[in-house]
Amino acid sequence: MTNEFIRVTYRIECVGDVEAMAAKIASDQSTGTFTELPGETEDIRRRFAARVEDIRHLPPVDAPSFPQDTGPGPFNRADVVIAYPLDAVGTDIAALMTITVGGVFAIRGISGVRVMDFDLPPAFACHPGPQFGIEGSRRLIGVERGPIIASIIKPSLGLTPEETAEMVATLCEAGADFIKDDEKLMSPAYSPLQDRVAAIMPVIRDHEQRTGKRVIYAFGISSADPDMMMRNHDMVADAGGRAAVININSIGHGGMSFLRKRSALCLHAHRNGWDILTRHPGLGMEFRAYQKIWRLLGVDQFQINGIGAKYWEPDDSFVRSFHDCMTPIFSEADRPLPVVCSGQWGGQAVETYRRTGQTLDLMYLGGGGIHGHPMGPAAGIRAIRQAWEAAEKGAELADYAKSHPELAASLTKFG
Amino acid sequence: MTNEFIRVTYRIECVGDVEAMAAKIASDQSTGTFTELPGETEDIRRRFAARVEDIRHLPPVDAPSFPQDTGPGPFNRADVVIAYPLDAVGTDIAALMTITVGGVFAIRGISGVRVMDFDLPPAFACHPGPQFGIEGSRRLIGVERGPIIASIIKPSLGLTPEETAEMVATLCEAGADFIKDDEKLMSPAYSPLQDRVAAIMPVIRDHEQRTGKRVIYAFGISSADPDMMMRNHDMVADAGGRAAVININSIGHGGMSFLRKRSALCLHAHRNGWDILTRHPGLGMEFRAYQKIWRLLGVDQFQINGIGAKYWEPDDSFVRSFHDCMTPIFSEADRPLPVVCSGQWGGQAVETYRRTGQTLDLMYLGGGGIHGHPMGPAAGIRAIRQAWEAAEKGAELADYAKSHPELAASLTKFG
Repeated sequence: MTNEFIRVTYRIECVGDVEAMAAKIASDQSTGTFTELPGETEDIRRRFAARVEDIRHLPPVDAPSFPQDTGPGPFNRADVVIAYPLDAVGTDIAALMTITVGGVFAIRGISGVRVMDFDLPPAFACHPGPQFGIEGSRRLIGVERGPIIASIIKPSLGLTPEETAEMVATLCEAGADFIKDDEKLMSPAYSPLQDRVAAIMPVIRDHEQRTGKRVIYAFGISSADPDMMMRNHDMVADAGGRAAVININSIGHGGMSFLRKRSALCLHAHRNGWDILTRHPGLGMEFRAYQKIWRLLGVDQFQINGIGAKYWEPDDSFVRSFHDCMTPIFSEADRPLPVVCSGQWGGQAVETYRRTGQTLDLMYLGGGGIHGHPMGPAAGIRAIRQAWEAAEKGAELADYAKSHPELAASLTKFG
Repeated sequence: MTNEFIRVTYRIECVGDVEAMAAKIASDQSTGTFTELPGETEDIRRRFAARVEDIRHLPPVDAPSFPQDTGPGPFNRADVVIAYPLDAVGTDIAALMTITVGGVFAIRGISGVRVMDFDLPPAFACHPGPQFGIEGSRRLIGVERGPIIASIIKPSLGLTPEETAEMVATLCEAGADFIKDDEKLMSPAYSPLQDRVAAIMPVIRDHEQRTGKRVIYAFGISSADPDMMMRNHDMVADAGGRAAVININSIGHGGMSFLRKRSALCLHAHRNGWDILTRHPGLGMEFRAYQKIWRLLGVDQFQINGIGAKYWEPDDSFVRSFHDCMTPIFSEADRPLPVVCSGQWGGQAVETYRRTGQTLDLMYLGGGGIHGHPMGPAAGIRAIRQAWEAAEKGAELADYAKSHPELAASLTKFG
């Protein structure tokens, strides 16, 4: 018997007494059922029952997060910390998710619930965590300081392997540090991964031989079938590839765990589908909680949108996500490289730098902002580098653009 | 090039023009990005672009499903069918989920979106589907007709392997056809799977030798690590076990795919966590869509709650789920056995029978309704069988209870 606890913070919302609801969650998610049972002894409850440790009341809301037919509110809210004995759960991520997350959303009478954070005991350091993380990504990519400038192949679907390789050549010439498949591209019939690897890797090697710079290409190797994903992984690694794009929600915890244990590649995670969990602020799961699970499972680089993203996510949410990635779970080594992306073209660099703690430990990923630059992709990447120089120097973009024509052109087109 | 399509039905909700939003989804989820690109040729669009095939308008709603700061509604709604070329996606479940589901929830400007259904072309029959399904489950369990009566070990957490085995003996004597671990029980330190198998299987074998009836026990083998899950699987199979409880969301598509390819066990799925996807009716995913994915991946038995469940789910939703499971995707063999559960004690049998098409092809799972029966578990199971006899005969429970004291006792305690 240990005396350690897994602490989970939930934001709960209900008509009536929040304390009673918190107690119900703690009971239902450990030893309880709908009627009293002869086998549920006091001893079992004492050793294995979850308990409510803290309740911080929040202002009630007028509208419920889940539609209710129980009449009008107010709907009371609180952040509630429930402590689960480690002995009752263990360290398996499937057990953690089943016991502390899954069932909570089924409980009758709540009008909203959101998992805000996991506070995990040291036993969870048994999970592998990132193989590369921030430092390893820098070593691999060969960029010792400053933001790692990355681009993505566009259009996201439809190019042949040869067309993709031509674009890779262009982006290498343009000065990208890192290039990646769109997350939607894995191994369709018009661009099988094998053919894409065969077309792209010679371009990467040729560029390295001519310039000394090894550009890292991340191939989309995701598959819902771990055996297939490992074949994809091996195909990339055998051809000298160093990185892969992984759609973590689509492969699931099992796919990620299986891959990480065997992986030689730097795993660049796309959280496609995460929005289902998080977009409604009263429901689902906060990124802070979500990213801890995937970091433990081995994510090296985490796409987290950016300032002014083309998607729904507000800037404040991105900033929180960035800080979450930068906060150790158990050690500095378990921090993934934050990948700032979505609608990025450099114009957001100054604000990003200011709001993320003035760090340059990030990947800055431009798609349309590079491909669509009026002076061409090389100018698109130069404009992004100029924007980050301005950020680091504390300059305003508009001022800096006066002596930097590529940045000036970006401001005119995208600003 | 094939000319097949994957058709996905979305219920979308937004201020303004639903047609425009549908077109945006189709574009974003195939070839589009935020600015015009030189590479996105007309040819690529023609071959790989998704297209809106149908729009069925629904009455607008006053309150948005995602909270909006765009001012008041109305929020327009429609069921929209988008057709994705099979060539652009392929048949990998990870590609399907990434392209047709994940990104849609990130789109700016929607106030709600729910995946209602997948209409998959025959190429998706490449997936294994259930190994047992309805017919295989009946053969395995040895119940040719009538509902398969099952029970679950309670309390859900905290019993030692020996205490669990004692309860298994009681439930075997009581006449259960099938017994299962609670979904929250996998392999914690106080009840390691190995010890549980060692304690339970002799009870099962002893009961079979004495009575000729082989009761099937489903062990909780889930792990987020597929290697560990396979060790758990092998441990059960080597000891003569025939079934396993699988927490599908906690292991993910990868875990399920890996297990199914290697499994000798009948896979009893718990959808713990599904509520996150489905509880808000304007968001997430309808069970109809969700269950197709997991059936293709190999679920044999699907827990779907029941009439009067102890959880939030309305009865109508359960009834739809039941019919979904009973509807072939590609053939009758891909139908999982529906597992009617949650707060079931027999009192719901008549209504269940009436509303599910008068079928007896189901597992009926009682926990507290069996363990907590005032005359003991054997009476609890007899009461459930009596309730199903009444259902099949078209009798009212109250009438039938007059000549069946166990059912009468259930009605008094749980009714």
